[in-house]
Amino acid sequence: MPESTEFADVLAANATYAAGFAMAGLPGEAARGLAVVTCMDSRIEPLAMLGLRAGDAKILRNAGARVTDDVVRTLVLARYLLNVERVMVVAHTRCRMASGDAASIHEAIRAAGGPDTSSIAFLTTDDQEASVRSDVGLMRSSPYLPDVVAGGFIYDVDTGRLRQVC
Amino acid sequence: MPESTEFADVLAANATYAAGFAMAGLPGEAARGLAVVTCMDSRIEPLAMLGLRAGDAKILRNAGARVTDDVVRTLVLARYLLNVERVMVVAHTRCRMASGDAASIHEAIRAAGGPDTSSIAFLTTDDQEASVRSDVGLMRSSPYLPDVVAGGFIYDVDTGRLRQVC
Repeated sequence: MPESTEFADVLAANATYAAGFAMAGLPGEAARGLAVVTCMDSRIEPLAMLGLRAGDAKILRNAGARVTDDVVRTLVLARYLLNVERVMVVAHTRCRMASGDAASIHEAIRAAGGPDTSSIAFLTTDDQEASVRSDVGLMRSSPYLPDVVAGGFIYDVDTGRLRQVC
Repeated sequence: MPESTEFADVLAANATYAAGFAMAGLPGEAARGLAVVTCMDSRIEPLAMLGLRAGDAKILRNAGARVTDDVVRTLVLARYLLNVERVMVVAHTRCRMASGDAASIHEAIRAAGGPDTSSIAFLTTDDQEASVRSDVGLMRSSPYLPDVVAGGFIYDVDTGRLRQVC
């Protein structure tokens, strides 16, 4: 199909990227045996913040870096088919998911002109360390990930520094 | 807690990253109004392939770049609270999720010493263009994302090039 105007800026940039592309033939396995579950947040550079480059790690991202069913599905594939042996769960400071309870998020969406989202569980937290510990625990006790090495971290978006929580 | 030895390599690299960090105070909103749903695949550089930098876009990643409930949850937050107005769904060539049916994935996991995963729906596809169209359609018809601009793409991991599907 013709490329749509709504994405013209990024598609033009992609043509430049492709012109200088030098990663042909890179395998799908994670060279460093690592997967990182982190937030969608635009301030996070998952590879750079860990000294990694393309090919090294599988990156999973959703709102709040939560270990949902979708994340478990993805990690099982990463673990058994793509060379992943260790998993980092990385939440971050100033996360919208840790800035208020579920009711305040639903209300903020309505106030922004959005729909009624009361049927969505946004997975907010008022204790980010506790939710990281809980999510790492969920992975460690999952029958689908019996031998994965897991760690929990909080990333400071204002210093670039990771702190290990568990 | 003391930093664990399993992550010593990436934590040492993070100390170097933090020492040169210059993004303090960056806001959480996506400066370019964009969210990208793509695969966890280690060969994909979501920002670089679109000419973006930190701060520009929300990045969502799971196995196969599928629009799951977790992705919808995340996109609703991105749309109404974090300045996202357009969403790209970006699958990629040589994706494990498009390399065989669900039965062959379950069997490959068993063969690799893994557990019985028959209760997990891995969301494999034998027609990647069709699944991208279907996922973009799911977003366009979602009552939770009534006014989002969505496009579907396939990224070639051997050329760096994006192709628009819908």
